[in-house]
Amino acid sequence: MTPPQPRWINALTKALSLPENKGQNVYQIATVENGIPRVRTQVHRDIIYPEGCPHLPILLTTTDARSPKVSQITATPRVEVAWWLQGSQDQFRIAGPVRFDRPGAGSPDDPGRGGPFLALRRMDQQNFDWEAKRRAVFDTMSAHMRASWCRPPPGSTMSAYADAKKWPATVPSLGEAESDEDRTNQEQALGNFALVLIEAEEVDWVQLGVIPNQRTKFVRQEDGSWKEEIIVP
Amino acid sequence: MTPPQPRWINALTKALSLPENKGQNVYQIATVENGIPRVRTQVHRDIIYPEGCPHLPILLTTTDARSPKVSQITATPRVEVAWWLQGSQDQFRIAGPVRFDRPGAGSPDDPGRGGPFLALRRMDQQNFDWEAKRRAVFDTMSAHMRASWCRPPPGSTMSAYADAKKWPATVPSLGEAESDEDRTNQEQALGNFALVLIEAEEVDWVQLGVIPNQRTKFVRQEDGSWKEEIIVP
Repeated sequence: MTPPQPRWINALTKALSLPENKGQNVYQIATVENGIPRVRTQVHRDIIYPEGCPHLPILLTTTDARSPKVSQITATPRVEVAWWLQGSQDQFRIAGPVRFDRPGAGSPDDPGRGGPFLALRRMDQQNFDWEAKRRAVFDTMSAHMRASWCRPPPGSTMSAYADAKKWPATVPSLGEAESDEDRTNQEQALGNFALVLIEAEEVDWVQLGVIPNQRTKFVRQEDGSWKEEIIVP
Repeated sequence: MTPPQPRWINALTKALSLPENKGQNVYQIATVENGIPRVRTQVHRDIIYPEGCPHLPILLTTTDARSPKVSQITATPRVEVAWWLQGSQDQFRIAGPVRFDRPGAGSPDDPGRGGPFLALRRMDQQNFDWEAKRRAVFDTMSAHMRASWCRPPPGSTMSAYADAKKWPATVPSLGEAESDEDRTNQEQALGNFALVLIEAEEVDWVQLGVIPNQRTKFVRQEDGSWKEEIIVP
């Protein structure tokens, strides 16, 4: 029997649909780099599920494959996301194992201490077409955003801000390149574009908009079902 | 000679004063727990400096001293803060060594791999009255917020949300307790209340509201001066 969907998914979806949370589609993702903490803001793109598995949500965001977070996650394949919804005063902290998908990245079966891949393994078993997904997400991005993956590696040194004017400003979506330059840029951008796939394994939901405040912890069990606990805010 | 104030402080202050960033006084703080990343949203309270040292800023926020982040920071005394200003599309990532201040917490001279304490050591040498500061910050909090430090330890299990109705709902500011109950609650709240002091050592400022995007990295040097570098966004 398929376990039911955890209650936090519905709570998150409902919170995101509130007018007061409009546009709050960013969260902060924490990683570890040589034992010290790192964190940056990312745009949330989607929540996906293996077919027939509403209990195994995966957060989808994207990155430049040359970014330092990629090597951090390769070394410690687990992240925690803090999603603060200012309008309704809800915080969702979502932690779990993480994987990249881009050509040649491989698909490690076991993230070790990152935690077990239940959802991603299931999608792999279902022969989910990750490359088609990657290209589809690439195409949903703005032309300006796509061009950001044609820059030199993120974090590398520049001599002046104005050097950025030499970089491509836009890259067309797939199938819409009109010049050789477009095609070259598109190939480069797509080559540097990676999906970040975060399996929710532990969720901590705090409701500061409710008096008295409420806080609930959800932990995924080995069989994929979720255990829910009321905890002190 | 005192080194000049780093340019990012002025940029941050200016960004915070913009009407489109109104109310964006929260950031996410990442820590490490047994090698895995943790992150949560915190309210920014203040930036403080040792006397005569505008180049040594310290971010001040607060916590319940019983919170898991306290043991995380004790084990790895370094954090990174991600401060996303949605209105102006600026991100400040601020990393550095961190310390708590509360009665009996002690003041480690050396946070080890957390990085050196330049600013906090200077304030200690100047005999800064941390306990007076802690009490003053406690008093700036709302009565409702102060009551949150009278709850059972954050994260501990409860049997029902309604149990929260038995907890004190408000705690008066210092000197304004009217009953024995007020005094008991106040003592408990103050005992669980700690300052979190983060020395800025590395700052990564991304300006996504500017086209082409700009990104600047600031690194504090051993003598307390700041090195600034333009990097690829």
